[in-house]
Amino acid sequence: MADPRVVVVGARGMVGATLLEVLAERGVHGVLALDKAADYEALPADVAFFAVAAEASLQLAGPSLAKGARVVDCSSAFRDDRSVPLVVPEVNVRDLLTDPPPRLVASPNCSATMLVAALEPLRAAFGLSHVFVATYQAVSGAGRSAVEELDSETRRALDGLAPSPRAFPQSCAFNVFPHESAIDVETSCNDEEQKLVAESRRMWSLPRLPIDATCARVPVRRAHCQAVTVTLAHAATIERVRDAIANGRGLALLPDDGARVASARTATGHDLVQVARVRWAQGELDVPEPQRRRVSLWIACDQLRKGAATNAVQLAEELGWIAGR
Amino acid sequence: MADPRVVVVGARGMVGATLLEVLAERGVHGVLALDKAADYEALPADVAFFAVAAEASLQLAGPSLAKGARVVDCSSAFRDDRSVPLVVPEVNVRDLLTDPPPRLVASPNCSATMLVAALEPLRAAFGLSHVFVATYQAVSGAGRSAVEELDSETRRALDGLAPSPRAFPQSCAFNVFPHESAIDVETSCNDEEQKLVAESRRMWSLPRLPIDATCARVPVRRAHCQAVTVTLAHAATIERVRDAIANGRGLALLPDDGARVASARTATGHDLVQVARVRWAQGELDVPEPQRRRVSLWIACDQLRKGAATNAVQLAEELGWIAGR
Repeated sequence: MADPRVVVVGARGMVGATLLEVLAERGVHGVLALDKAADYEALPADVAFFAVAAEASLQLAGPSLAKGARVVDCSSAFRDDRSVPLVVPEVNVRDLLTDPPPRLVASPNCSATMLVAALEPLRAAFGLSHVFVATYQAVSGAGRSAVEELDSETRRALDGLAPSPRAFPQSCAFNVFPHESAIDVETSCNDEEQKLVAESRRMWSLPRLPIDATCARVPVRRAHCQAVTVTLAHAATIERVRDAIANGRGLALLPDDGARVASARTATGHDLVQVARVRWAQGELDVPEPQRRRVSLWIACDQLRKGAATNAVQLAEELGWIAGR
Repeated sequence: MADPRVVVVGARGMVGATLLEVLAERGVHGVLALDKAADYEALPADVAFFAVAAEASLQLAGPSLAKGARVVDCSSAFRDDRSVPLVVPEVNVRDLLTDPPPRLVASPNCSATMLVAALEPLRAAFGLSHVFVATYQAVSGAGRSAVEELDSETRRALDGLAPSPRAFPQSCAFNVFPHESAIDVETSCNDEEQKLVAESRRMWSLPRLPIDATCARVPVRRAHCQAVTVTLAHAATIERVRDAIANGRGLALLPDDGARVASARTATGHDLVQVARVRWAQGELDVPEPQRRRVSLWIACDQLRKGAATNAVQLAEELGWIAGR
């Protein structure tokens, strides 16, 4: 078989650029990098990675599929479309095994990806009955202009100049605020929280799992962190919980403190979802050990790699669209 | 009555400097500012604010009281001493009404102060049966050298230089990591989490309230944020929950998004604890409204003012040691 013609659409964006890096690392060469969706329409491709806004993905997908391409979409366009698999391979690779095989697959929201990956060993071994998650999200999730704004606003702050935010409602320099995505009038949840919960439930096939999410931005260039407390459905010991995570696919269990504790910095550039501080939730310490169910943990993940590009490439590999490394 | 002789011990630290500001704003003049604990020993004082490390407070307190001073301690030295009131006036001012009146009082940990202040209206109106809290803590909680390190490390990062952390185990520039305080071997909780839980329980007189806390550092100079989900003991509507917070003492209910949503920046320099995004926890949205109990909210607080200095000054005012404004 000849090498597939692989295209990355939206190659100048943060996710697109990371896709090019990850594909090169994994031995996929000759990738055509297109900045704009319009450039793509006339080109033939075997495998297309869409790293564009959801509206552009919606427009591109039909014509691409009609011309015979296989598509991995990194946007939110198809994530709630039940005819399109939404997959983190370490969690629900079975959802790729449809008949006929899928020709369009969706890679999930970065916050959902790291959450389901980190908790999957606990779901599999002990079941989940409740999840609380608070996110610490890097600005690069909002695109390259947001990263540039973090740098420029930070320089202004260090120089004593007044803030001048554009990408965010407030200056992100030395600041923390709730995620800037639109708030739903009915639920008062923001769009990022809604995605995190809906996509996690879908991938786990747990449509009623209660997940309480709060999403916030932190002045970090790259990699998200999450503080999680999960209620297990069945009894466990904390040693068994730690072992499950230490042996979990795609995970790295890091020290609880010091220079190597999981952080935005330790996660940056890596594909493994990093976990640390696996412990009984503090409020469970008064409960006799055999009755304890709530576990707290700390998660860090490069949201541009495993949270987007690496996961998308894994999907194409799992489906045999490109050669796995 | 002559004006009391007021001393701030540890005046060069972040909390000490803020104490001087707050005292001046509230009309307390002629305050003696001492850098070092040793300078204080020979001086007479009517009211002493200790903004020093716990070990220094332990050494200073006895001699100060013996010489007739009233003492407000901002350290952790006496916070678990049941003979010393630990008070946030908006929450448990009753604990100051001992007979004889206290001559030594403790101001709580900043994270505990903002949590109990923000949740007090909900505790009073609906009861609390569980609290989950994840903190986003400014580096200034670790002292002036930590703020200087945030600035210097951030400049290094912007200039592409390698990190050179001293105050924290990892560079804090553009980074998020679990709180650096010591981890208890038995519980795997860090010291900040232990304080947050123990002090909140003590102030609320709820020694068994389950509180699941995760404390983390964010690259912010000043003001802490918290993502909280609380389970109410009794039924409520979300409107009644919002009203309770809007009318709560020492609180400001801010918009849910946009330029004025509660953040580290909006809280900096203010004494009110700011609250935003009061909503049903996302996992409760599948539950019929009358059965809903879990509420999520976002809290921001200047941890040097209300989290330390302002609360300490309020305590002295409540006790009549200095004139209230």
